[in-house]
Amino acid sequence: MVNHQQAFDEIRAIIGDRLSQKDADRDQHGQSETWHRAPPPDAVAWPETTEEVSRILAICNRHRCPVIGWGTGTSLEGHSLATHGGLVLDMLRMDRILDIRPEDMLAVVQPGLTREALNTDLRATGLFFPIDPGANASLGGMAATRASGTMAVRYGTMRDAVLAMEVVLADGTIIRTGTRAAKSSAGYDLNALIVGSEGTLGIITELTLRLHGQPEDVAAAVCAFPTLEDAVNCVAMTMQIGIPMARIEFMDPIAMRAVNLHSGTDYPEKPHLMIEFNGSPEGVRANAEAFGDIAGECGGEGFQWAASPEDRRKLWEARHASYWATLKLRPGATGVVTDVCVPMSELPGAVSAAARDMADAGILGDIVGHVGDGNFHTLLLIEPGNEQELARAKEVANAMARRAIAVGGTVSGEHGIGIGKRALMEEQHGEAWAVMGAIKATLDPNNILNPGKLVPDRN
Amino acid sequence: MVNHQQAFDEIRAIIGDRLSQKDADRDQHGQSETWHRAPPPDAVAWPETTEEVSRILAICNRHRCPVIGWGTGTSLEGHSLATHGGLVLDMLRMDRILDIRPEDMLAVVQPGLTREALNTDLRATGLFFPIDPGANASLGGMAATRASGTMAVRYGTMRDAVLAMEVVLADGTIIRTGTRAAKSSAGYDLNALIVGSEGTLGIITELTLRLHGQPEDVAAAVCAFPTLEDAVNCVAMTMQIGIPMARIEFMDPIAMRAVNLHSGTDYPEKPHLMIEFNGSPEGVRANAEAFGDIAGECGGEGFQWAASPEDRRKLWEARHASYWATLKLRPGATGVVTDVCVPMSELPGAVSAAARDMADAGILGDIVGHVGDGNFHTLLLIEPGNEQELARAKEVANAMARRAIAVGGTVSGEHGIGIGKRALMEEQHGEAWAVMGAIKATLDPNNILNPGKLVPDRN
Repeated sequence: MVNHQQAFDEIRAIIGDRLSQKDADRDQHGQSETWHRAPPPDAVAWPETTEEVSRILAICNRHRCPVIGWGTGTSLEGHSLATHGGLVLDMLRMDRILDIRPEDMLAVVQPGLTREALNTDLRATGLFFPIDPGANASLGGMAATRASGTMAVRYGTMRDAVLAMEVVLADGTIIRTGTRAAKSSAGYDLNALIVGSEGTLGIITELTLRLHGQPEDVAAAVCAFPTLEDAVNCVAMTMQIGIPMARIEFMDPIAMRAVNLHSGTDYPEKPHLMIEFNGSPEGVRANAEAFGDIAGECGGEGFQWAASPEDRRKLWEARHASYWATLKLRPGATGVVTDVCVPMSELPGAVSAAARDMADAGILGDIVGHVGDGNFHTLLLIEPGNEQELARAKEVANAMARRAIAVGGTVSGEHGIGIGKRALMEEQHGEAWAVMGAIKATLDPNNILNPGKLVPDRN
Repeated sequence: MVNHQQAFDEIRAIIGDRLSQKDADRDQHGQSETWHRAPPPDAVAWPETTEEVSRILAICNRHRCPVIGWGTGTSLEGHSLATHGGLVLDMLRMDRILDIRPEDMLAVVQPGLTREALNTDLRATGLFFPIDPGANASLGGMAATRASGTMAVRYGTMRDAVLAMEVVLADGTIIRTGTRAAKSSAGYDLNALIVGSEGTLGIITELTLRLHGQPEDVAAAVCAFPTLEDAVNCVAMTMQIGIPMARIEFMDPIAMRAVNLHSGTDYPEKPHLMIEFNGSPEGVRANAEAFGDIAGECGGEGFQWAASPEDRRKLWEARHASYWATLKLRPGATGVVTDVCVPMSELPGAVSAAARDMADAGILGDIVGHVGDGNFHTLLLIEPGNEQELARAKEVANAMARRAIAVGGTVSGEHGIGIGKRALMEEQHGEAWAVMGAIKATLDPNNILNPGKLVPDRN
């Protein structure tokens, strides 16, 4: 640890008491939203400029001191735990909007800004930033985990939302990736390489984000289906015809029961789709009617439009509350959240198998999904501290992940790998996992950036 | 060259006379569509399986023999010229459709298949593959250059279209990148790294492509504007409101004159927009009307709908013929094509400056653009073999590229770097260009894959 202390002393000479080795600060930056646990980092630093980040990384690189980027700490797979000790770099003081260019539909922001703060500032511009993971996460963290959310079916994921970045590499070199243009064929897509790299290749110090026009009109609807297959079929048909949806979410009967208990609604305990259209008033109406026809053909029942903003708010609140609503189904429970994503045709099978596995393992939980992407989550309710239940939940989660790999899908649609899914990487990627490791070793030869995550261990 | 002969002999032992050292074959694979020139490769091979590609690369890697991937040879920046000698790998015999999964809206194809051949086979499925560079290029080549075309504003580029690939690395290792799921947060985006790498990181042997539903209805329109600014303003307003366009193309007055002369039309010689909407009949009508209102506000004149398939065909034929039509403006001329892409707000300035530079240099040419992306091309007409004119045209092209960099854009929107724009890479990317070189050196330590292109020279 003596080397780390030298590093910390050198860093303190630059940023003063914005480096802390106090237990309270370390503990606060050693937490995880989920059941993942690790000892706290040795120190926490709050840089305020790119230059500071660069100097800090150069020092840490010289001293072989691990550096772990930190945003709002809301990642779900233990991404920001200091499993190898070292320094947590809390980016939340770099939270400014540097530029909003309405005519180019982009914003330039610092990584510590949260998505809600950005959208608050965008309100008057007629633009918005659509990527909406559950948490009010930092935009740097969202880029690092390649986050998405309910609107990905229309607006894509952070892969699509990040046009350009400023990134500090392990040795302190500051690079720029991407451009402000809508597309580019000028060399390797380093922007896409850094998005989703979970802090293992560099620290993001600036992001240029693609914005979208606030829709003139929005309409939402909820519809029950006799079976899961009917609901998925309806999604597939809608997508094939090319009707643009802003959101299309699936909730299983247990999620609906939870929502009813939590929100006092009386939806039938059947598979449901919640859908939203946006665009011009005429376009929305036309698309909504076309969807209504398809839903009818697929056996949809009790089709309800939520045309008013108030009704719409209620509908999406019910969806967003489903995590908390479901937790209430087992008082005192904590949750293991899964995140597989599969090709559309495999979705009914994957969801059915997941439900069966949960039942077989005696684990109560629900299934909700960003069904237009083939991405679904289960929330497995377990007793806190009950290691047996945790082990059973992990088994169920791993079975889902392996089934996703087997049908050409992925172990993570949007939550990322962190430490939670690292054991599945070789199964999913085969020899390509070693290629990821080779790239990591090239850009971070001393393995200081979030070591122990995502890529294979160094030999 | 003795080492190369050893490599060729070993390869011939595997694929027999599908390796050729004949002048005719070498010359045919030493051509370029544009003014770029280089000596022909030393040999040409036509692999038929991934296994063969893997064995060939392993041999070439051992003998340090350059390997250059070859599709239809339609790239515009000399990407496939054997500037360092070696072996051209002609992928056109690997041209099968391996799987079409309508329910997953994807196709699995070999790299030698062309986009038109794929779309012919898709016709009965109700799906289509939207990426449309001018040429009927191979899908492997399109992925390698990160191609796009007129529909990128709606459907994205090859970056978005390629879900997964099988790739053979320099040492013969076969890897898989991406998945069949719509999105993934499971590790580095190697898929995005290979797309646009121009054959310098690996040889693509299989692609999983995202398909889209054939629109129920399509409507197109053409509209003149008093000034370029009015036209671009109209595009920006339309995009901000979020009206989904399938295509929105700009043509300058010279392009319109060329089209009139070529096609016998009588469009006014003013800046024009050509636009297409697709979706449900009601959605198309609603969106088209909303666009008509905006065009009117922006001073649009002579707004003409092309509702019938025949009228629509004529309209897009006029656009697609503009290259040939413009060449005719100077009989016997050849063309230098440029390809910058800039943020929307910079488009009027960039286009005006380009027009001014062309006039100042005394070079006749037109400007057309995928204006929804901020991407525009000029076609600079020069006399074949006139080195002075070529030099002047290159100066004009470089000025456009540097202006694009200065305003946050890119030197290539869709044609790629090859040898034509390599000198601009450091200007655009700064230290990130060295990072690209480091990645190249890691994955191809012997520098056998398309050497002399895209990345910095090896020290």
